[in-house]
Amino acid sequence: MSVLTGKHLIDGQWCAQSCESFSAYAPQMDEFISPQFHSAGATEVNLAVQAAERGFDVIRQLSDHCRSELLTSIAQQLEHIRAPLVARCVQETGLSTARINGEIERTKKQLLHFASLLMEGTWRRACSASSDVTSHPDLHLSSVPLGPVVVFSASNFPLAFSVAGGDTASALAAGCSVIVKAHPAHPGTSEMVADCILSALKHLDIPPCVFSLLQSKDHEAGVALVTNPAVKAVGFTGSIQGGRALFDIASQRPEPIPFFGELGSTNPVFVFDSTFANGVDTFAQAFLSSMTQGAGQFCTSPGILVLQKSEHLDTLLTSLAAVIPLQAKQTMLSPHICSAYRRATRQRQSRSELNTLAVGRVAENAQSQAHIALFSVSAQDYLSNPELEHEVFGPSTLIVICQDFAEQLVVAKSLRGHLASSVFSGSDSEDRQQVAQLVDALSLKVGRLVFNGFATGVEISPAMQHGGPYPSSTMAATTSVGSRAIERFMRPVCFQSMPVDYLPVVLTSATADQ
Amino acid sequence: MSVLTGKHLIDGQWCAQSCESFSAYAPQMDEFISPQFHSAGATEVNLAVQAAERGFDVIRQLSDHCRSELLTSIAQQLEHIRAPLVARCVQETGLSTARINGEIERTKKQLLHFASLLMEGTWRRACSASSDVTSHPDLHLSSVPLGPVVVFSASNFPLAFSVAGGDTASALAAGCSVIVKAHPAHPGTSEMVADCILSALKHLDIPPCVFSLLQSKDHEAGVALVTNPAVKAVGFTGSIQGGRALFDIASQRPEPIPFFGELGSTNPVFVFDSTFANGVDTFAQAFLSSMTQGAGQFCTSPGILVLQKSEHLDTLLTSLAAVIPLQAKQTMLSPHICSAYRRATRQRQSRSELNTLAVGRVAENAQSQAHIALFSVSAQDYLSNPELEHEVFGPSTLIVICQDFAEQLVVAKSLRGHLASSVFSGSDSEDRQQVAQLVDALSLKVGRLVFNGFATGVEISPAMQHGGPYPSSTMAATTSVGSRAIERFMRPVCFQSMPVDYLPVVLTSATADQ
Repeated sequence: MSVLTGKHLIDGQWCAQSCESFSAYAPQMDEFISPQFHSAGATEVNLAVQAAERGFDVIRQLSDHCRSELLTSIAQQLEHIRAPLVARCVQETGLSTARINGEIERTKKQLLHFASLLMEGTWRRACSASSDVTSHPDLHLSSVPLGPVVVFSASNFPLAFSVAGGDTASALAAGCSVIVKAHPAHPGTSEMVADCILSALKHLDIPPCVFSLLQSKDHEAGVALVTNPAVKAVGFTGSIQGGRALFDIASQRPEPIPFFGELGSTNPVFVFDSTFANGVDTFAQAFLSSMTQGAGQFCTSPGILVLQKSEHLDTLLTSLAAVIPLQAKQTMLSPHICSAYRRATRQRQSRSELNTLAVGRVAENAQSQAHIALFSVSAQDYLSNPELEHEVFGPSTLIVICQDFAEQLVVAKSLRGHLASSVFSGSDSEDRQQVAQLVDALSLKVGRLVFNGFATGVEISPAMQHGGPYPSSTMAATTSVGSRAIERFMRPVCFQSMPVDYLPVVLTSATADQ
Repeated sequence: MSVLTGKHLIDGQWCAQSCESFSAYAPQMDEFISPQFHSAGATEVNLAVQAAERGFDVIRQLSDHCRSELLTSIAQQLEHIRAPLVARCVQETGLSTARINGEIERTKKQLLHFASLLMEGTWRRACSASSDVTSHPDLHLSSVPLGPVVVFSASNFPLAFSVAGGDTASALAAGCSVIVKAHPAHPGTSEMVADCILSALKHLDIPPCVFSLLQSKDHEAGVALVTNPAVKAVGFTGSIQGGRALFDIASQRPEPIPFFGELGSTNPVFVFDSTFANGVDTFAQAFLSSMTQGAGQFCTSPGILVLQKSEHLDTLLTSLAAVIPLQAKQTMLSPHICSAYRRATRQRQSRSELNTLAVGRVAENAQSQAHIALFSVSAQDYLSNPELEHEVFGPSTLIVICQDFAEQLVVAKSLRGHLASSVFSGSDSEDRQQVAQLVDALSLKVGRLVFNGFATGVEISPAMQHGGPYPSSTMAATTSVGSRAIERFMRPVCFQSMPVDYLPVVLTSATADQ
């Protein structure tokens, strides 16, 4: 594909019916860019769902090997268009070329991870119990895919949590057809990646009804997709507000469906004073790097630092104020996100309980340029204002200053759910018991706990967990990153006294693997 | 305990505050029996939840070995009171002595199953990924229990799906504290079993806040429990109407919580004509036995038979009409359930699309005595009246008569979710390909598929799945019977670069098992 069509991909065809359209915005250039993208209406939603119903019957009957090849082929297609993809994606997101190249690597790695997983066989969690002398029946537990899945892609990961991202890769791996509702902040990137998936399907002679892409700038298409009775599960990465609205719709359907939403998270970082035994600089640098990475637009950004009052703390605050790159360009993903960030930080600046430690300057007329903002608050004031725990999406952190460890522990126990949390402590410290207590308390609040490190950077691994208690995700028992992400899109079925000839092909092959 | 108190068990104390009360009803004797049971109000609910919050901090820190001992001890306590327990339970439910003795066996087996599982270590699904040369961090995936769990016990399994039933056993095993909302149809049984749990806790010196029992005859206590912010998950076995109402409340909380509801199921049975190659008698007997077992009050009762028109079918219908035990006493669990059953079957008798093949006689003034009722309908009429798929709880089955296999397949594909389904076919049949097609279609509709057998009787096994698509359950990816039931009450946590000293004790021991 050399020229963007601005259309939807439905059943292998680039098509558009509705007249409504929108354009991508280039944050670095502060202007809209061509082409126009059509916004999906009811007709396109229905066509995509009908295709996905046929597509489900196709993909669920493909062998594990064939679905593995599909994922591998998508990864290859992404590599083929790397140069133009990076160019368009950088334009649409304002993220750096290095970051987008890294994200292509990550997206490929995710696809190949599930491609390998499919060849292992254990992902199905099959399990057998043979009949025995006490006349128990022969049981064979395997799994089936759920049905057509809708994926809402994220604004902040235009590739890795988008059209061919983790949700799509794991849903296809599980044997589900997929409809992606693209994020309107990067429609060109989305079209290019959808075309990669189409090429991979064609290359392997798989009917293209398995995958569709809908472009839309407003909420109607998304609501229509989640409401449609043929849709059986939803993957979502985005804001608490948007995610909760769709979760409610999914739960209130006549047939409720699982909604796997990764929503907001502030990822509190708890620091013991022993961390600074050899000075504050190492920590200060690592913190600033994590806080400002991608303009703070990571779901795992450190939004809260919880420290104890000490002379080291004073040094740290002075050091941070000195080295914070106040003039550094912080380009946000869209004017919409940037104005929400500006509103939130302005509000924090005006609050009497908060000290503004540092705040960058930025030309107000640059619609996507954000300022770094660092605040502090006493633990007491923090605890009496629960809204201070909420995420401020962007390069801003709130430092919570505690009188002692006991107060740090109170803060930890007061938390609602987060994706991740960190604990920093000096290796030769005497606070061993306190660290253990804090780790225990935090394990009940988050999906991932990092020691002496920040949570930004999520490994693709069988041992990863990306999803914590609400509101950080809507299904804390599932993960959107790592091997178990595939389990979101399947469910167990027990075959009792069933002759092997009558097991579906995909299950017979799974049996063979066990 | 020799005399029933009629009170709630909260934090080790038998107590009651509200003035409202109710009595158990003895269906066989058709009368209310003593004592009076108090109905829990807001005060008792709050006290129970406060105890459960403390109890969660107790039980989650117990070793796997200690929780295993607790489950074993509960099973022993049940055995100690077997004789009075059976007597009271038979009185309250109208079920037979043999059935209740069997249910005690099953309940003990479930408790001991989880007691063994805890000693295996694999139940936590722990998994590690070591750091390597490419600088990936050290990851350790383990799990934590969710928090206080509320269990709504079932009317139809007064022991196995009740106070110390599968939900309670698996929640305690996972490390959650439990509040049981007892079913008002068997309050005495519930009190006796709760006392067993209290004895086991005392025996092992575990603080009794780990488990509470609330009695209540109305909905308020249940709603208050599900609404309480400290409650983190719910297990439920009961009707679609009641379950859906509580599911909605759980989903609409500010912090939504998982609601594991096992609701209604009709468990359609598909029969190929080859089944009758050696006559219809074997099948007819097995079917009648499954249909009338426990007065048809099993969640896995065969509510729908889907057959093809043939001479064998005529013979089968004649045979069924001849051998059906029309005078057999079918005592239902409560006047409430019985009147709902009578209403539903009367309505079926009056429908012009349905043929009444057989209907038993019963004294209308015997409030809990039900009549066996067998109906038939053409597949065409069945397909145009979707409400015919709904469960009629009791000893009634609808026979759907298809023109051919194609119509049987249409019926299969039209189904909503069920717990189980069966396929019958003669072993030397030529319908191999059709059976495979049907099994494939049904695997998308149910949690368990039985070949040449009925679904009544659910094995406790690692390979069991008891939970199908909605409305048969609210979380089709989970099971309420078998090893994986424990997974409902835990969630994964990833520990990144975490020194082993800082892992919580329960996780260190899990690590050792891997």
